[in-house]
Amino acid sequence: MKKIFLLVFLVPIFSFAQTSDSAFIKAIADNILVSRMPYNNLHTLTKKIGGRLAGSPQMVKAEAWGYKALQEAGADKVIMQQCMVPHWVRGGKDMASVSYKSANGKTQTMQLNVLALGNSVGSGVKGVQAPLIRVNSFDELEKRKDEIKGKIVFYNVPFEETFVQTFQAYGKNVVYRAIGASRAAKYGAVAVLVRSMTHAMDNNPHTGALYYLDSIKQIPAAAVGLRDVEKLDTLFDNNMVLTAALFTYGNMLPDTIGHNIVGELTGTEFPNEVITVGGHLDSWDVNEGATDDGTGIVQTIEILRAFKALGYQPKHTMHFVLFANEENGTRGAKKYAEEAKANNEKHIFALESDAGGFTPRGFGFGVSDTVWNKIYTWRNLFEPYGGDGFVKGGGDADIDPLHEMFNTPVAGLRPDTQRYFDVHHAVSDVFEAVNIRELKLGAINMAALLYLVDKYGL
Amino acid sequence: MKKIFLLVFLVPIFSFAQTSDSAFIKAIADNILVSRMPYNNLHTLTKKIGGRLAGSPQMVKAEAWGYKALQEAGADKVIMQQCMVPHWVRGGKDMASVSYKSANGKTQTMQLNVLALGNSVGSGVKGVQAPLIRVNSFDELEKRKDEIKGKIVFYNVPFEETFVQTFQAYGKNVVYRAIGASRAAKYGAVAVLVRSMTHAMDNNPHTGALYYLDSIKQIPAAAVGLRDVEKLDTLFDNNMVLTAALFTYGNMLPDTIGHNIVGELTGTEFPNEVITVGGHLDSWDVNEGATDDGTGIVQTIEILRAFKALGYQPKHTMHFVLFANEENGTRGAKKYAEEAKANNEKHIFALESDAGGFTPRGFGFGVSDTVWNKIYTWRNLFEPYGGDGFVKGGGDADIDPLHEMFNTPVAGLRPDTQRYFDVHHAVSDVFEAVNIRELKLGAINMAALLYLVDKYGL
Repeated sequence: MKKIFLLVFLVPIFSFAQTSDSAFIKAIADNILVSRMPYNNLHTLTKKIGGRLAGSPQMVKAEAWGYKALQEAGADKVIMQQCMVPHWVRGGKDMASVSYKSANGKTQTMQLNVLALGNSVGSGVKGVQAPLIRVNSFDELEKRKDEIKGKIVFYNVPFEETFVQTFQAYGKNVVYRAIGASRAAKYGAVAVLVRSMTHAMDNNPHTGALYYLDSIKQIPAAAVGLRDVEKLDTLFDNNMVLTAALFTYGNMLPDTIGHNIVGELTGTEFPNEVITVGGHLDSWDVNEGATDDGTGIVQTIEILRAFKALGYQPKHTMHFVLFANEENGTRGAKKYAEEAKANNEKHIFALESDAGGFTPRGFGFGVSDTVWNKIYTWRNLFEPYGGDGFVKGGGDADIDPLHEMFNTPVAGLRPDTQRYFDVHHAVSDVFEAVNIRELKLGAINMAALLYLVDKYGL
Repeated sequence: MKKIFLLVFLVPIFSFAQTSDSAFIKAIADNILVSRMPYNNLHTLTKKIGGRLAGSPQMVKAEAWGYKALQEAGADKVIMQQCMVPHWVRGGKDMASVSYKSANGKTQTMQLNVLALGNSVGSGVKGVQAPLIRVNSFDELEKRKDEIKGKIVFYNVPFEETFVQTFQAYGKNVVYRAIGASRAAKYGAVAVLVRSMTHAMDNNPHTGALYYLDSIKQIPAAAVGLRDVEKLDTLFDNNMVLTAALFTYGNMLPDTIGHNIVGELTGTEFPNEVITVGGHLDSWDVNEGATDDGTGIVQTIEILRAFKALGYQPKHTMHFVLFANEENGTRGAKKYAEEAKANNEKHIFALESDAGGFTPRGFGFGVSDTVWNKIYTWRNLFEPYGGDGFVKGGGDADIDPLHEMFNTPVAGLRPDTQRYFDVHHAVSDVFEAVNIRELKLGAINMAALLYLVDKYGL
């Protein structure tokens, strides 16, 4: 009888809370779905500013633009957090080719579509010419370590197509891009070519950060487009003896100055307790950085604009952060956590969007079981906007330092992943490949989550 | 006690069934995710054959291609069901302009990006010139019916942006395209312009079928691109007096011959009980018919191929149907139901994909409560492939006659809807706007549903 009484009593309260919350979330959605700001902001960032690697003039432009955009969206204040960032430049047009003797004894040469990996050393104008050896894994590299000396190693590790979630395929293969050069250099390789991390049907190479391991010789490294990979495979499968030539011009200049741009809505009740939302402002140099991570930036600014437009002033301080240098150093992320510590801020939650502006599926949460159980009760509120796929495990590169330093609960937006690796770090990451309504739905789900965390705490 | 016994007893059986089913569905997924056939088929259909309106030479080509594709995918037999289809031709390049006097008294003329609506009569080379009147609804048309005579009516009904599910916006507005011409002609309008059914940011007009109401004069009709709509709005809002000129050349020729192409896997246990899956082979003339409905066609063929590749012969007969003439007559759909009746087939389930090859969200079911309750228990099996969003209400134009005639349970694939109206019936509905992995995931979810219906019945 008591239980029944409690149920009768509790249900209406819960319903009221949910109704009130769903009404506010609907107001957010209605506001964002008719807003022209996301289109305009993404257009400016991609078409007027373009690719913006840490240290580049475009990144400086992007910082100034971001500062103004946060102000105009209604931030109580905007802070620039200065940090030192790596300054890698591509330095020229990357080129590669392979030569082999055809059946009639004539030498054939095939051009390859390549992009030097970020942070890599260049071959310079003299280039690197050497026999090309194909390996399909680090295991194979180890087995054949005596064959590697003086050669260019071609890592041909297929991007797994049967993983429905494409980030699994990336997670499995990215190590070849990240440290493949050093692993091969250890055995005397003079350069590496890496199969691009994609299942796109085009031939665009996909660049990305490489990290040289200490005390191993730094050698040039480039990603190869997939259709060219297929041609190479055919040659290898026919036992052709291949010589490759690679020309890259990468150069790591001294560290330079970059900034996180932080827009703030000051909390009315808990000004020293911070909720963070952000994306990263930098991108690779070869594209417009639309999906990676222009969309996260535009969503972050749009959420601020919508909160202000609806007259919503949070109880906790909210930081809308455009992070510096995610792509090849995550120095902005570290700086943000260090500043939080220096300012004695209490960071109660952080959310990042760095998986594209595709239609939202949900969030991944890096939180305790207690927090997870609380958040999970909000799930139905996200169903109308497609973001109710809550999974455990999450966060993102720019907010992980907060999580590590303060055990801050973190989450990453989970958009649909099918299109992400079509454009990731390739020339095809442009404005036209973004659907603005999908981007907006991501922002709506993110805003809803921030609102609920602010209202109910964690 | 008995209840507990039952639970203990039932759970393992259920788990075993689910495990076995999930394993088979995983096998389907693994097979389709690495298949090159969807890419190749969609490429051929869109790039080699192209737009294929009923009665067009391209549609004849598409039928021959579809017949062969179903054979090659492994159909036990392929049947061509002949039916008479409407034969509308565009007849020329649609053009429109508006003229008005600017502040300095000079006449300004602005070209509009237009497409004649399907089935509409043409103005011919003389065109139609008349004052342009803007109405925002049929209600406004009725209120201003005395102003309509001798004018061109411009239906400017905004495509609702706050509906998260974009088909709701289409459902609300499509009546203006379908019968707006007749409604205006009733009051003496000489032509109509209709705001395109889209929230795309480009200026492509979106055509689609118009139906003239009996005994009302048939007048020319065209869709206008959205950016031009905005310009017209500005002119109207500034009280400019506008004269429009419209040149269209549409012509409805006598009915001609078309065909449904039906690939069959003959049922091992219930050969006279039929499960249907399909899409429509026809498309509009102005694009490649990639999303509408090349993707549904390619999915249908791919499911057949995967079943054969896995050695799966269904218990019930399965029909893989490429329907004729969905766009401007649904004569193929009617023919298919008539043939089912004539052949005394029992149709136990029908599934259509005609909402694009976008990442799947689930299915809409037009089924009884009993069937719904059964199907709903399968839902978790779809979760790994994103298709677990089961909702009531569904079916599609090509399978609705089956539902009406035999009360056959029907379902439509529910892909994500955000991008659909960017390309729907516009020149932008091309191969490049389709992501093949998203298309494949749709096929995987569809194949899983067909498999479960075949195994467990409905």
